[in-house]
Order: sequence, then C-alpha cells, then structure tokens
Amino acid sequence: MGRDLMGSWEAKRALVEEYLDRWVPSQDTPPSRLHQAMRYSLFAGGKRIRPVLALAAAEVVGEEALVAMPLACGIEMIHTYSLIHDDLPAMDDDDFRRGKPTSHRVFGEALAILAGDALLTLAFQIMGDLSLYPSRVYPERVLGAVKEVALAAGPLGMVGGQVVDLEMEGRSRGEGEEEALEWIHIHKTARMIEASLKAGALVAGAGEEAEILEAYGRHVGLAFQVVDDILGCQGDEEKLGKPVGRDVEKGKLTYPALYGVEASSRKARELIDHALEILGPLGERAWFLRELALYVVDRER
Amino acid sequence: MGRDLMGSWEAKRALVEEYLDRWVPSQDTPPSRLHQAMRYSLFAGGKRIRPVLALAAAEVVGEEALVAMPLACGIEMIHTYSLIHDDLPAMDDDDFRRGKPTSHRVFGEALAILAGDALLTLAFQIMGDLSLYPSRVYPERVLGAVKEVALAAGPLGMVGGQVVDLEMEGRSRGEGEEEALEWIHIHKTARMIEASLKAGALVAGAGEEAEILEAYGRHVGLAFQVVDDILGCQGDEEKLGKPVGRDVEKGKLTYPALYGVEASSRKARELIDHALEILGPLGERAWFLRELALYVVDRER
Repeated sequence: MGRDLMGSWEAKRALVEEYLDRWVPSQDTPPSRLHQAMRYSLFAGGKRIRPVLALAAAEVVGEEALVAMPLACGIEMIHTYSLIHDDLPAMDDDDFRRGKPTSHRVFGEALAILAGDALLTLAFQIMGDLSLYPSRVYPERVLGAVKEVALAAGPLGMVGGQVVDLEMEGRSRGEGEEEALEWIHIHKTARMIEASLKAGALVAGAGEEAEILEAYGRHVGLAFQVVDDILGCQGDEEKLGKPVGRDVEKGKLTYPALYGVEASSRKARELIDHALEILGPLGERAWFLRELALYVVDRER
Repeated sequence: MGRDLMGSWEAKRALVEEYLDRWVPSQDTPPSRLHQAMRYSLFAGGKRIRPVLALAAAEVVGEEALVAMPLACGIEMIHTYSLIHDDLPAMDDDDFRRGKPTSHRVFGEALAILAGDALLTLAFQIMGDLSLYPSRVYPERVLGAVKEVALAAGPLGMVGGQVVDLEMEGRSRGEGEEEALEWIHIHKTARMIEASLKAGALVAGAGEEAEILEAYGRHVGLAFQVVDDILGCQGDEEKLGKPVGRDVEKGKLTYPALYGVEASSRKARELIDHALEILGPLGERAWFLRELALYVVDRER
C-alpha cells in the first residue's frame, strides 16, 4: 500500500464498512425499526478512526488487518452507541450529529436508548465470536483483547468520563478543573483509542508492541480530543456537521475554554510529538500510525 | 444440600450477592456517584433467578456452582441494566421498582441511563475475564457461553422484545396480537432465562444437557412472565413493591388482558408441566430445577 496515508485509511475504512454491514442485522430483520435505528447511526458517515487503528495495530504486529476485524467493528458499534446516548435530551441534548438529525430526533427517545443498548450488546457478541476470526487466532487472545475494550468502555473508562463530564457542566470555574478536564478527556476519549490499538495488537499476538501502541494511543487520543474541542468552538459548521459554539453555550469544560485556542493548539502538537517519539522503537512498521498522528492535529473535522 | 429448594436457593443467592459485591466497584471508587447508582439498582433486593439458574445448570452438569459465577453475575448485571432503562420516562415511566424509587427518580435520567450502560459493559468484562474462572475452564467454553448471553440480550433477544413491547403498547386490539404477545415474552424474558441455563451448562462442559436445559428455560421463562403479568394486574402491591394495574393503565399487551386470569393461570401450569417433562432424561440431577419450576407458578411476587 506504500506510504499513502489517505489511500491506506480509505482501504481499511471500506473493509470496516463492508463487515459492519455484514454483521449488523438488516432492516428486513424484525424488529425492523430497531435495526433501522441501529444502522441509521452506524452508517452516518463516521471517520472510523478507532476501527482503522485496531486494524493498523494488527498490521504493525505483522498480521493481516482482518485478524482484528471483529474487534474493529465491535469498537465502532460501542463508539456509535455512546454518541446516540450522549446526544439524548437527558444528556447533551443535541439535535444534529454529522450533519444529520440525531437518533432520538428521528426515532424518538425510547428507540434511541434501545438502539444504543442493542449496539453495545451486539458489539460484545461480535468481538467474542470465535467463528468470525481466522482459525489461527487463539481464544485466549480474543478474551484478552475483549477485556481491554470492556475496561476502556465501562464505568472506569468511557462511561465514567461521560459521568464526570456531565457533573462538571455549568459549574463555576475553580481549582482542580485542569485535572478534571484531563481526567474527562482520558476517560471519555483516549481510553477507547488506546484500547482499539491494544486490542488489535493483542489479537495479532503482540509482545511488547502492545504497550507501545497503548501509550501512543493515549497521546493521540488526548490530542484528538483537544483538536475536537478547538473545532467545536471555531471550526467550520458545514464540515463539522453540527453547530459551532455548543460547548460554550452549555458551559462545558474544554481545553479552549480553559487555556484559550492558541495554548490548546500548542498542547495538541506537544502530545503528537510525544506520540511520534513513543513509536520510535517500531521503526518503519509504524509509518501509518506516524502519518495518522500528524494528520490528527491538522484536520478540519 | 438435600432437597430443600429454598435452602439451596438461598445458598446460591448468598454466593451471588458476595461476588456481585466483589466485582462491582465500590462507591469509594470514582466516579463515585456512578458506582452508587449501579449498586443502588443491583442491590435492590432482586430474586436473582437468572444467576441462580446459571449456577444450578453448572451443578446439573456435574461441576461446582462457582464455575459459572462470572456468567451468573454478568447475567444479573444485564438484567438490572434492562430494568433501569425500561423504567425510564421515555420507556415505561415507572416510579417504583421492588418498593424503592426507580433509578432515574433518585439519580436523574442522565445518570440512570449511564448506570445502565455501565452495568451492561461491566457484565461483559466480568463474563469474559478468564482470570475469574477456575483454571480448568477452557477459554473456548467461556467464549461459547458469553455468546449465548450476548445473543439473548441483544437486538434479536431482550432488547428486540422491549422494542416490540413498546410498539404494541396502547394499540387497538386486533389480529395477530396473540403471536405478538408470545414473541414479546419469548424475547423480553424467556431468552435470557434460557441463556442463563445454557451458558451455565456450557461453561461446565455440558454435552446434550445444554439443549435440554435451554428448552426447559424457554418454558419456565414463559411461565414466569405469564405469572408476572397475572401478579401485575391482581397481586399484592406490598409484596410486589410496585403499583398493581400499571399494565392495564398503559394498555400493555399481557396474557390476562388477552385471555383473562383463569386461562392465563392454566397456560402457566401447562408450560410448567411441559418444562418438567423436558427435564425427564436428567433424572435426580435436576431436582432443584424441577422444584423451582413448581415454585414459579405458585409464587406471590
């Protein structure tokens, strides 16, 4: 595939789309409205960053990408469920996501909640289904990889991050909020990006690469969220597919709100520099991850 | 343990309580409010039928109950999450459950949704954690058992059942509703009870017992739901811990609403008779399941 970041990304992403479509029941399967809601959000034009990272991690370890496909698809389902639930009126109360009305706006709150629940459950079904992996993949490895994802997604990971994010919302600024902000970003965003890389590496039989990829994921994940915050307060509405300035409106704790845009951009670059340093020992094998890290800070959506 | 149904049930239930307490983060672990909400619903005095069945299934196969403990606890967490989400204002909008205010009444809607999400995710973390099983349990068996639970809990199982239940609510009665009612009960209740038994059997290394226990679970699960419907429309409010007559109020499709109480009681007895017949080949090993089936139709809450 050479050194073409976008070409390689698109190839992986196309594979992810294909397998997601294969593994999520079609709208013709009853209850059809539920499957329609699941697919509406799952195929709403996501960047597929997490699953692409899982596939890339397997390749870094010397395996083919397909070895990590059930994990990649499960991780994207988990990401999608978290967006559906985060958008609910009781949570962030958002009407648009990726330029389309949010799930509860289209299907109603009850079905949006249930579509999220169904995606989360299906994710674990797919990730733990030994028959979806090449036969050379040991069951121990599958269990080890799934555990990483579960830890990153659960109360001590992503869900915990969302809880603290909501708790901090609209609070008067004060001491300890810098730590709170980092805690939220690590748990809400970085942990799942770390886990995508580590799970992809583990299922491919990684040794010490797993730790390296995890540490890389932590830094890229944090940088990704910082850039997201910046775009959320001054990005291009059309490219973002959602209104700009919502975070400020809701009194969300964000990097630009706390440090300003310039210092936040600097922070993102530092994190990426650190991520590149961490990849050092992997040499040429990690070219894709290196290019991707550089892309993360320069993206516009 | 002899032939004392209640004694054996209580012993298993006490074990389940102990392990749930061990495996769910304490309220001192941040985010503490999230863990508090998870524990509030998890330790609200449930009967623990599903986990007890999982443990009993392992014993029928000749293993010790503890072999199925991670599955048992995960299944109870899944059951609990489903109750929290079902009670939400956007769904059944219930204020009381087991005599206590529902999660969203105590913690607010956002935290109730997230506590459910966290319990569902933690369930898969615990069920898939090889280190929580005795070392003689093969990883393939764990994956096989977890897959059963995931299938039963997901869009083609419990979540699908809840979707159709909501869709049928308040509809004018008409053709096809008998099939709809059975479909809802099988998916919303029986599938998880089946899966509890099958998963417990599989992790214990069951051969053909797994199919027998699954079929038994289907019948007992359906009977359980029919009795639940009857109690919901004419039971003792204090014993139930929730208002009687809510189903009628909401126009829910239930057995008593469709066939009357007497015919519903008959239906429950027929299902239990069938369940006992199915257990035949297992002989004395299945005494607990036999006693339990008889208990299901005579319970008062």
